[in-house]
Amino acid sequence: MPLDNNNRVFKSVGTSPLRPDGLDKVTGRARFGADATASGMLWGRIVRSPHAHARIRSIDTSKAEALPGVKAVVTRADFATGLDGDIGDILENVMASEKALYQGHAVAAVAATSPSIARKAAKLIVVDYEVLPHVTDVDEAMKPDAPVLNEKIFTEGLAEKPTKPSNVVKRIEIGHGDVEKGFAAADVIIEHSFRTEATHQGYIEPHACLASAGPDGQGELWCCTQGHFMVRDTCAQLLGMDVSKLRVTASEIGGGFGGKTTVFIEPTALALSRKANRPVKIVMPREEVFVASGPTASSSIDIKIGATKDGRITAADAVLRYQGGAFPGSPVEMGAMTAFACYELEHVRCIGFEVVTNRPKAAAYRAPGAPMSAFAVESVIAELAEKLNIDPIELRLKNAVKEGSRSSYGPVFGPIGLIETLEAAKAHPHYSAPLGPNQGRGVASGFWFNFGGQTCTSLNVNIDGTVTLSVGTPDIGGSRASMCLMAAEELGIPYESVRTIIADTSSLGYNDVTDGSRVTFASGLATIAAARNAIKVLCERAAKMWGIPADAVIWEEGYAKPAGANAGEFEPLSLADIAKVAGNTGGPIAGHHEVNIETAGPSFATHIVDAEVDPETGRTQITRYTVVQDAGKAVHRAYVEGQFQGGAVQGIGWVLNECYIYGEDGVLQNAGFLDYRIPVASDLPMIDTVIVEVPNPGHPYGVRGVGETSIVPPLAAVANAVSAAAGVRLTELPMSPPRILVALEER
Amino acid sequence: MPLDNNNRVFKSVGTSPLRPDGLDKVTGRARFGADATASGMLWGRIVRSPHAHARIRSIDTSKAEALPGVKAVVTRADFATGLDGDIGDILENVMASEKALYQGHAVAAVAATSPSIARKAAKLIVVDYEVLPHVTDVDEAMKPDAPVLNEKIFTEGLAEKPTKPSNVVKRIEIGHGDVEKGFAAADVIIEHSFRTEATHQGYIEPHACLASAGPDGQGELWCCTQGHFMVRDTCAQLLGMDVSKLRVTASEIGGGFGGKTTVFIEPTALALSRKANRPVKIVMPREEVFVASGPTASSSIDIKIGATKDGRITAADAVLRYQGGAFPGSPVEMGAMTAFACYELEHVRCIGFEVVTNRPKAAAYRAPGAPMSAFAVESVIAELAEKLNIDPIELRLKNAVKEGSRSSYGPVFGPIGLIETLEAAKAHPHYSAPLGPNQGRGVASGFWFNFGGQTCTSLNVNIDGTVTLSVGTPDIGGSRASMCLMAAEELGIPYESVRTIIADTSSLGYNDVTDGSRVTFASGLATIAAARNAIKVLCERAAKMWGIPADAVIWEEGYAKPAGANAGEFEPLSLADIAKVAGNTGGPIAGHHEVNIETAGPSFATHIVDAEVDPETGRTQITRYTVVQDAGKAVHRAYVEGQFQGGAVQGIGWVLNECYIYGEDGVLQNAGFLDYRIPVASDLPMIDTVIVEVPNPGHPYGVRGVGETSIVPPLAAVANAVSAAAGVRLTELPMSPPRILVALEER
Repeated sequence: MPLDNNNRVFKSVGTSPLRPDGLDKVTGRARFGADATASGMLWGRIVRSPHAHARIRSIDTSKAEALPGVKAVVTRADFATGLDGDIGDILENVMASEKALYQGHAVAAVAATSPSIARKAAKLIVVDYEVLPHVTDVDEAMKPDAPVLNEKIFTEGLAEKPTKPSNVVKRIEIGHGDVEKGFAAADVIIEHSFRTEATHQGYIEPHACLASAGPDGQGELWCCTQGHFMVRDTCAQLLGMDVSKLRVTASEIGGGFGGKTTVFIEPTALALSRKANRPVKIVMPREEVFVASGPTASSSIDIKIGATKDGRITAADAVLRYQGGAFPGSPVEMGAMTAFACYELEHVRCIGFEVVTNRPKAAAYRAPGAPMSAFAVESVIAELAEKLNIDPIELRLKNAVKEGSRSSYGPVFGPIGLIETLEAAKAHPHYSAPLGPNQGRGVASGFWFNFGGQTCTSLNVNIDGTVTLSVGTPDIGGSRASMCLMAAEELGIPYESVRTIIADTSSLGYNDVTDGSRVTFASGLATIAAARNAIKVLCERAAKMWGIPADAVIWEEGYAKPAGANAGEFEPLSLADIAKVAGNTGGPIAGHHEVNIETAGPSFATHIVDAEVDPETGRTQITRYTVVQDAGKAVHRAYVEGQFQGGAVQGIGWVLNECYIYGEDGVLQNAGFLDYRIPVASDLPMIDTVIVEVPNPGHPYGVRGVGETSIVPPLAAVANAVSAAAGVRLTELPMSPPRILVALEER
Repeated sequence: MPLDNNNRVFKSVGTSPLRPDGLDKVTGRARFGADATASGMLWGRIVRSPHAHARIRSIDTSKAEALPGVKAVVTRADFATGLDGDIGDILENVMASEKALYQGHAVAAVAATSPSIARKAAKLIVVDYEVLPHVTDVDEAMKPDAPVLNEKIFTEGLAEKPTKPSNVVKRIEIGHGDVEKGFAAADVIIEHSFRTEATHQGYIEPHACLASAGPDGQGELWCCTQGHFMVRDTCAQLLGMDVSKLRVTASEIGGGFGGKTTVFIEPTALALSRKANRPVKIVMPREEVFVASGPTASSSIDIKIGATKDGRITAADAVLRYQGGAFPGSPVEMGAMTAFACYELEHVRCIGFEVVTNRPKAAAYRAPGAPMSAFAVESVIAELAEKLNIDPIELRLKNAVKEGSRSSYGPVFGPIGLIETLEAAKAHPHYSAPLGPNQGRGVASGFWFNFGGQTCTSLNVNIDGTVTLSVGTPDIGGSRASMCLMAAEELGIPYESVRTIIADTSSLGYNDVTDGSRVTFASGLATIAAARNAIKVLCERAAKMWGIPADAVIWEEGYAKPAGANAGEFEPLSLADIAKVAGNTGGPIAGHHEVNIETAGPSFATHIVDAEVDPETGRTQITRYTVVQDAGKAVHRAYVEGQFQGGAVQGIGWVLNECYIYGEDGVLQNAGFLDYRIPVASDLPMIDTVIVEVPNPGHPYGVRGVGETSIVPPLAAVANAVSAAAGVRLTELPMSPPRILVALEER
């Protein structure tokens, strides 16, 4: 039985029981977004711009409206007015008003009695476009003569107030000390520029929803999302509805990875439904998922790091340019904050530029912004180690942040586990295993904040002693099982006696999106608190049954027991004993908790990768991979390992193959899984995992988020392995066979 | 603005705003039981006994199983074993084991890929029956030589322990004093026997459900029911599942009136689904609703009442025989408790016999048991008034219970409103309006307990200042609107800002069934308590925003205000002001309440009816009808009036037309709405209503239940009017034209 930092003996937490959603998912009975149906349902279809940048002169919907079977056509006029700021951008992205800002940008939508009529009607909508010059590359977009997307954007954060509009939304700068002074103290300085391309989260389930709204201002929505409360609040604003009058139910989710943390089709389905007064279903075709959902940012990065001969970093400087598509919101700030977060630095600076281009608005993708900056920084660290002839893990250990370190982004760290991951990596057999010909080994570390946020849970005790737990955070990584484990742990009952469900938005208080690796931490914390509130009630009821004061009862290992000198002698009562007669002792027993958790437990990982590069084809094979990561406390070990492995795999795809390829015309050329190649099982070795547990003092069991940190190191780790195998430093993603062949030749 | 007993000025309560479910229901978008669908869904069909009483020798399912498209066949072997008592009877009723106890009794079921294959497969199931003698009449069933349904039933409550099994489940007796002594003091004694037939609730929506369960012990169920928590707990027992692992969602309900307070098809759908590992839908055809759901009891009743010349009742005695179908559970006890509840009696006795017959197991039907005994008692009271030449309302006023009266069933009444309804009826223009030829006027009073019970609610405050209220009691009579009104009243926000939903069983704590006229009272009380808990949080948050102690803030008319000498001066904060920044002051704001309410507010009604009897055809036309009833406090006046009217209309149907007609073979001969005739609009006058409000001290606003009391007086009121019009006392229901013609002839 594992122990936590307070030597607590866990019974449920730390085990790997069967997943509660397993059977439903393997037998096809699980209901995903596209599985929702309703009587009298219509099919929605969205009309999208074929141009990367175009003024919309007019939209003629008359022919579509005249087609038999068409029940509603909507354009921007069917949404709320007067929205600005972020919510205004979301609306503009959901449905363009004056300009189409990227290929795939929605301009109108239809609802019809069949998918084929809807498709036909969509083609009958005549949009008169004035095609404008476009730009899709981040460096190009920053040039003074680049086509400007938005005349209202004047760069923020510059020393001088800009006089003309720009594609640069803002300049940010973080850090401390004096980097020039630091570089002056360096014996060696490494400086490189890097480029990464946009990648897609590659979730298997396309966005899908079923909306049912009426002219009475009420509506319901079923959709696949990482945050149905966010969907509710956003759609209510976009449609001009009361939040209370829109009920959103999250379906099972076939992958999200950050890509389902905003709305795309949901407000449009609601607008169509409201206009037709019929339920409307929209399912995104895969092509639309690529061109019109939210991939991550592409980037252009300069890194400069100086160090003394003995490997002490004296200064670190970065310039990050992230384009986030057609609207503000690229994750450059988080890229900047995480870039040097692994290192204790006296002099550090990160300058970031947030840039708009004629591409779909970026969405979150697992540790948004961090993998790119880590790729650049950890590549330079690897080169530094090589140049200084210091083992790369040793070099990191020399500079690693620990409890009490001032982080590069500001706060002082509490207890953290970077050093523990580095030590475990160093000790792992993988690190000392021999390499074959054309093989190289890479190492990289990574950091993610992990978030807390607004969270509500309700726990209800049933008459047979089983427990129902209601959470509001969609389960994207096994959180239902983790919640069951934590509730079972607190209550002292078996894992199997607890069932966790994702409540709809009308049945529970507001919950922030499932993102930031916050769920096991935050919903877990709220679950433990709700269970403790229920235990209070259980003790009161036991006291009532015994006729003794409530404070003379304690809860121990699933039993109420009399406590204290005058409590008397009674046989302990189990949860089931008390639940059975709850109706006679006051009614149903429940525990609730609502909280906004301002803190969370940051986590670190260190990855070791072996790569073999075929000198003839330039193809890379990953031959061995080990993830070492601090989970704080692994609640469900198999799920934690799955997160470690999944992050590594997505990182491998990002570094080796995946990228958005735009033509001269600004049209995406590989909008499908045949041309946009994510790794498949045969591309991968077994991903080995090591769970480090440095407890997070901000969680009763020490839990830290685990889902995102695992995608931060792999870009750099694989790049370092490939560079070692190829004998040349590669600085541009993806490291596809043609690019590697060019590098080999140039070497 | 109406005032309550404490001179509280109500803003929302007592108004009649638009119903929140109105648009959905009139446009067809509301989702009823049969509207649920799922991918891969199968259609279930139940095989039912054609015999009223038969031993099941064997069931051969092999031909059905071999039919292509059939995915599961279940018999009793597919349900849990070892259940006895009430739950055992429920299982036996859901699926027969050794004997079919009534025509329509389920013996097997199939699930197939289409309704037609399911129908065909059902016919291929070969059941070998040994037909047994049967009995469907209550008096016949009580005879010593009657066919015995259940060899294990030995009459309870007899002076001597019975030596052989019987159809009489038990004898009960309630009352006080010495009726013989009372009759000895009477100047006049009236004695009559009465008979009523079984009627059906006549809900328009047949039972329908969709079940999805798997071999992992987990399942979901969507169904139309008055109590999805009851469905969950019952089905879990019948299927041997954990309560936590079955999630039940209540659909919109197209009428229930008590008939949807138990399970019929739901456990079978789950058993089929679990076996097929596919979702299974079952919709009862109308014929099955009649033969195999739960009508009310038929009865045979003797009443004897004695009084002094001046109209003081000296003794009241009743013998009630109620058959409740093939299983114990006839509502005779409630019939006995309510029979004389309107009267303050020194000497009173009610003897009841609960009898089983070869009919479908009776279910609740609006004030179960009470309309029949009230019909008998109030008929005798009418005759007594006639004989004593005392105005019937005066006679009732002379004997009416009031605060402090000992009720005929035991407890002493608190504040009640019978006298107020009698006074209001006497003062109503209807009571003194002239009658035409062949017309008669009837008056009757009635009583219902109203229940409390286990109830949970959760109230969540949204970011835009709207509120979502989550209750667990299906809305059968407008309770969503009433809950919105009460929450709005407490919080001081508009009705339109609150939306009430019916949460599924995994999202909220246990709620008793929507019955006993408990919901507006109990869920209302829990709503008010939850709102007050939320107000505590709102005040804490306001205090935090102002930087003052929480106890220095009060809530007044929708605003947090500083209170007390040292609180300081601040602008009041509205709920919306506080909600908007809740994320910064601690997180989401909610209020919860779980309770078992042991008490409720009894209510009384007095009805006035004018009936015209056509002497040639025997047909009765109700020409005028007035309902006067104590609502305690009418929360939504239009809904309260609707309940009054609906109860009267169902009572009119019961007394004039509706009845179960069995053939010699024990087969129901009128299993459809063409032959079982419920009143339609053209049969009815406008039902006038008078809302009396004698506040119930057990509810913060004085609410009493209203849904059931309204069906207690009409049987007697109409019978008295018809008897007056016909000039002869009629004692048997229904008072159909042939029966009236016979009575006219006999006169």
